Amino acid sequence: MDQAKPRLLIHGASGRMGRALLRLAAERPELQLVAAVSRSGEPLAEAPDGVPVLPVARLAEVPDFDVAVDFSLPEAFEPLVAACRAKGAALVSGTTGLSPGQLEALDEASELMPVLWSANFSVGVAVLRVLVHQAAAALPAWDADIVESHHVHKKDAPSGTALSLGAMVALGRGSQPHYASLRCGDVVGEHLVQFAGPGERLELVHRATDRDIFARGALEAAVRLAGKGPGRYDFGELLLASGRT
Amino acid sequence: MDQAKPRLLIHGASGRMGRALLRLAAERPELQLVAAVSRSGEPLAEAPDGVPVLPVARLAEVPDFDVAVDFSLPEAFEPLVAACRAKGAALVSGTTGLSPGQLEALDEASELMPVLWSANFSVGVAVLRVLVHQAAAALPAWDADIVESHHVHKKDAPSGTALSLGAMVALGRGSQPHYASLRCGDVVGEHLVQFAGPGERLELVHRATDRDIFARGALEAAVRLAGKGPGRYDFGELLLASGRT
Amino acid sequence: MDQAKPRLLIHGASGRMGRALLRLAAERPELQLVAAVSRSGEPLAEAPDGVPVLPVARLAEVPDFDVAVDFSLPEAFEPLVAACRAKGAALVSGTTGLSPGQLEALDEASELMPVLWSANFSVGVAVLRVLVHQAAAALPAWDADIVESHHVHKKDAPSGTALSLGAMVALGRGSQPHYASLRCGDVVGEHLVQFAGPGERLELVHRATDRDIFARGALEAAVRLAGKGPGRYDFGELLLASGRT
Amino acid sequence: MDQAKPRLLIHGASGRMGRALLRLAAERPELQLVAAVSRSGEPLAEAPDGVPVLPVARLAEVPDFDVAVDFSLPEAFEPLVAACRAKGAALVSGTTGLSPGQLEALDEASELMPVLWSANFSVGVAVLRVLVHQAAAALPAWDADIVESHHVHKKDAPSGTALSLGAMVALGRGSQPHYASLRCGDVVGEHLVQFAGPGERLELVHRATDRDIFARGALEAAVRLAGKGPGRYDFGELLLASGRT
Repeated sequence: MDQAKPRLLIHGASGRMGRALLRLAAERPELQLVAAVSRSGEPLAEAPDGVPVLPVARLAEVPDFDVAVDFSLPEAFEPLVAACRAKGAALVSGTTGLSPGQLEALDEASELMPVLWSANFSVGVAVLRVLVHQAAAALPAWDADIVESHHVHKKDAPSGTALSLGAMVALGRGSQPHYASLRCGDVVGEHLVQFAGPGERLELVHRATDRDIFARGALEAAVRLAGKGPGRYDFGELLLASGRT
Repeated sequence: MDQAKPRLLIHGASGRMGRALLRLAAERPELQLVAAVSRSGEPLAEAPDGVPVLPVARLAEVPDFDVAVDFSLPEAFEPLVAACRAKGAALVSGTTGLSPGQLEALDEASELMPVLWSANFSVGVAVLRVLVHQAAAALPAWDADIVESHHVHKKDAPSGTALSLGAMVALGRGSQPHYASLRCGDVVGEHLVQFAGPGERLELVHRATDRDIFARGALEAAVRLAGKGPGRYDFGELLLASGRT
Repeated sequence: MDQAKPRLLIHGASGRMGRALLRLAAERPELQLVAAVSRSGEPLAEAPDGVPVLPVARLAEVPDFDVAVDFSLPEAFEPLVAACRAKGAALVSGTTGLSPGQLEALDEASELMPVLWSANFSVGVAVLRVLVHQAAAALPAWDADIVESHHVHKKDAPSGTALSLGAMVALGRGSQPHYASLRCGDVVGEHLVQFAGPGERLELVHRATDRDIFARGALEAAVRLAGKGPGRYDFGELLLASGRT
Repeated sequence: MDQAKPRLLIHGASGRMGRALLRLAAERPELQLVAAVSRSGEPLAEAPDGVPVLPVARLAEVPDFDVAVDFSLPEAFEPLVAACRAKGAALVSGTTGLSPGQLEALDEASELMPVLWSANFSVGVAVLRVLVHQAAAALPAWDADIVESHHVHKKDAPSGTALSLGAMVALGRGSQPHYASLRCGDVVGEHLVQFAGPGERLELVHRATDRDIFARGALEAAVRLAGKGPGRYDFGELLLASGRT
């Protein structure tokens, strides 16, 4: 076993994200996938040869790992956090619907281990959020608008990502942007944050064309979080801090 | 005299930038324009009533000021730096063609007073440079391209601004971007810095529609630099650091 | 007098558009400016040497002309139409607020002379309207959205131009587009008409950066309309039909 | 058998395009897929139940059809044209590498049957070509630029589609555009045709996000071509002429 490579556990392996993670883990030779956990533990076509898929009831039996990537359900959350603490592992999670108590438990756990939770694991969106925060802080008097485009089946508007970008605008300059939402074609997701001042304009755009970016981003988070000290990490800040300096 | 307001000296007042500064200074009530200096000292239509225009030969006679904004010629540079030191004032300069000796003198002066020199005083470009640096550092494996558009009379390509953005890319990720230049119509200036990864893309765009942005940006620099401690300042960093936090 | 060049009358010469027309007429050597008419007939700084400015009361005394460009008020409309008929001249008009009776008179006049009335003399918008009509007809099942951006002082939304582009969408495919309006900075005017289908998208964008485009477009209309046969002309169709073939 | 629906033959069914056509034909209830032809005639997973896959050697045995969609190789071309003529069927073809003699044969066949050959069956690109031609004709004095972006594995630059758009520019205004090519990420294909004049600009953009658009476009061509009279058809013109009027 290559001890230099962080050992990866995929938790919630039978869901859409879990299967994408199993399929794409091979793209990251920096990581060594050692096991997967799903509700039932049934075999998964996406699991590479030799990687066991355990049922959640047998989580205690997973081999040692250094970082868990988790897209599962709230009811499986506490055992996973406990397993990470027991193994001294980092936790990357995109599980939604966590209760206030679970969020508090996450904060407590972060005193002992590195923890990164995010609602959107697109690398580009994570970087964009940081850039938007800074631009808003530097240009407090400019008008800010957010335009987002998604496929016609998306019901909520503005998108959660647009709102999170708007929160960065508000954090930076103290006032909310204006939002516009387009629902058209089969657009995976596009977000424009525009700052307009007298005689000039700054447009910051993210375009997603493939839903695999979320699994790829979670694996990137795992690579960067493994081996870090205890604490709560923000995906965007982690990406910026780990850049070449 | 309102001592709370930084007192502004415009140096190089008869040039295109100088006259724009005189015309636009009234937009910034945070500043108090006290005098202008031009080569000849002849009256300027853009100078507000009561603001003297002195010839460069009588620079020593200017009233007290807190910040000088300078778009002049290299031969007038040393006396201006000396005047700023004598007055305890900050210096914002966009004068091009400075000799290595003059640049060194600027560095020395910055040990005693705040100094900000920039080739491009667009507020948006200054912020964009910082954002591009950070995005490049966070996304080192993504492809980076810079596309710039200018009017058909612009001879050099890529533009100086494109190259300075490319330098930020290189600083962030260690490799140069690819450049493309369009010369079309009467476009004042547009720069796109694009980062493309698997399944997603980040596009950072600046559009200038009015050449007054350079004078406006220099006045913004004056507002932010006045009262700072000695040192060399970067316009983009100054804009980001001065943001609401 | 160069008989090969259409002789131009500018009507409504003291208004914002009229003065821009006087200033920009020199850009079009294909036209020969012979006179201007304003309400008062007072001298105008923009009028080239030797070009008389007559008061509207003395319209009957204008020298012969081949095409009138009119941006005036409804009360001056009937005398101008009569003058055009008397001179055998074409009429290009952007005068707004015409009464139903005046519009009917315009239709009647068009049986004897070429007439072009438009609410927007941007050449680019005129071409865009034709393109949008055709794209909408060719892509009836694609989603259509119109996003327009204007300066923060613009009160109405969507803009009149956006609505006229939407009318072209509806004419082409039988259903209205969705609109979004941004009010930001000092944007002169931008319109995006987007058609989105499965796996692909068409974006048709117009960006205006200078209000002179409206006077320039009206002069273009004058060049193209002069010498045409009687009839009502559409600006966009005229631009397309006059293109190199 | 539903005689009202054009009966479809897919020729070249085992290639990438052929299999996409088999898979996507079900999206078009206006068409009735009756048979497929591939080189070997081996079963294809994408072929719907009950649709025979015949080897090219047994082309003569295919059931009656009204329109063939062909993405095959030049050596299979003459028998297919003969089969279409024998059946009184229309031919939609995207087969590349045809010899001058084969192209001549296609012209001859078009005197007896409807024929549509295209290098690019994206519906959006076909419409864009027509729009670009018209814009170039209407705006002969504006600067024209084409910027295309594709994934990093694309070797040729400018792209064939960019060159075909440039040909439309040249056809419209008599002079070539300037080209710029970006190779970045996994971009399926983006083309910007920009026309810039004084104070305004027109940007016509096509973005492809899914390679299925080519098969979908070929099926659209089949729907529109079936039942037409003999002749050579252009995809864009066919799309525009078939629009609601």
